[in-house]
Amino acid sequence: MEAIQVIDIKQEVLSRNKGLADELRAQLEEKNVFLLNLMSSPGSGKTSVIVETIRRLRARFRIGVIEGDIESLVDSQKVAAEGVPAVQLHTGGACHLDAPMVHAALRTMDLDALDLVFIENIGNLVCPAEFDTGAALKVMILSVPEGDDKILKYPLMFSVVDALIVNKLDYLPHSDFDLGALRERLRRLNAHAEVFEVSCRTGAGLERWCEWLRQRVESA
Amino acid sequence: MEAIQVIDIKQEVLSRNKGLADELRAQLEEKNVFLLNLMSSPGSGKTSVIVETIRRLRARFRIGVIEGDIESLVDSQKVAAEGVPAVQLHTGGACHLDAPMVHAALRTMDLDALDLVFIENIGNLVCPAEFDTGAALKVMILSVPEGDDKILKYPLMFSVVDALIVNKLDYLPHSDFDLGALRERLRRLNAHAEVFEVSCRTGAGLERWCEWLRQRVESA
Repeated sequence: MEAIQVIDIKQEVLSRNKGLADELRAQLEEKNVFLLNLMSSPGSGKTSVIVETIRRLRARFRIGVIEGDIESLVDSQKVAAEGVPAVQLHTGGACHLDAPMVHAALRTMDLDALDLVFIENIGNLVCPAEFDTGAALKVMILSVPEGDDKILKYPLMFSVVDALIVNKLDYLPHSDFDLGALRERLRRLNAHAEVFEVSCRTGAGLERWCEWLRQRVESA
Repeated sequence: MEAIQVIDIKQEVLSRNKGLADELRAQLEEKNVFLLNLMSSPGSGKTSVIVETIRRLRARFRIGVIEGDIESLVDSQKVAAEGVPAVQLHTGGACHLDAPMVHAALRTMDLDALDLVFIENIGNLVCPAEFDTGAALKVMILSVPEGDDKILKYPLMFSVVDALIVNKLDYLPHSDFDLGALRERLRRLNAHAEVFEVSCRTGAGLERWCEWLRQRVESA
């Protein structure tokens, strides 16, 4: 009897995705375009962080945004209102963005006129962590009302990112969120990740985040 | 040349899942066990709602809980501390629960000793909406800090549920969340869904939710 061949569809999909992501990364490096993949739960403040970052870095970089959503134009309209080019990706039912989707979005953008492109991923702490989009930097947001235990329950996301933005810091007085416990858990899981405590409502912490990002983009 | 056969893997998976879910539902009806599928974003308060509901309905029903998580025992420990049977499902990387997983969990439970079983689904507003778990009732939580626009961005979830619990109402004074706008959007998308405004921190609204659930379980 012949040996049975087992095809692991997920591994196939991830490995094909990784191949295209690596190609994308090489192309973007050649064009001097810095691609940042921003991930979080629904409602953690991805669009707000992008808008606040645009306002602080637009004098230095030419910025564009790829908005990933199941449907609607809610987020891309907010970004377009800032006067930067925005591409809306509608995934239908897909719960994450992958390299082919980002590739399709980038093809519609004038890369010679851009220095920094944000990907706003689908609001989801699970699958986006597994799919390389070709980005040079992976950043996640955790908002205070979600609770400090999310790192225990969605560890992959926290372990793959280069930076963690703790957003909605203005909710801290009304919450039992333990910043020290989160930092300690992250240190054990992903020691190299930078942590930023911010509030898009009050503006707290955003300068430090933007300064760090500026340095990353300029040294890339 | 032969016609090419196209296999839509997602449709295959969903249809096989639906078959098992229907079987499960029939078995549970025969056993008089009411299964409730609770879904939401990470950190919206699924475990808190389950714990508060157990405290208010334990005198009337024998309650059990199936906890779905990528990993960790954080939630099942909280539920077990209430003295009810809890089964922890670890999905590895899967971003939703499906009927085979729920079936595996139910096999380990003594169904003759239970009236009401909660499924705490993976924190995710996308894929859990697509997978029938065999539950008699689908309920979602949206927490105030997530924002009232989530219904525009994750419409499938809002359209498939029998009830929407708006949790963390105690954050409302610190938020621009518009309850009227949410209710109006839900009315157009899913007119039959019941809405409950609650705070697990203050206890507000929980009696009305528990009374409604009691009636649903008893009339099933």
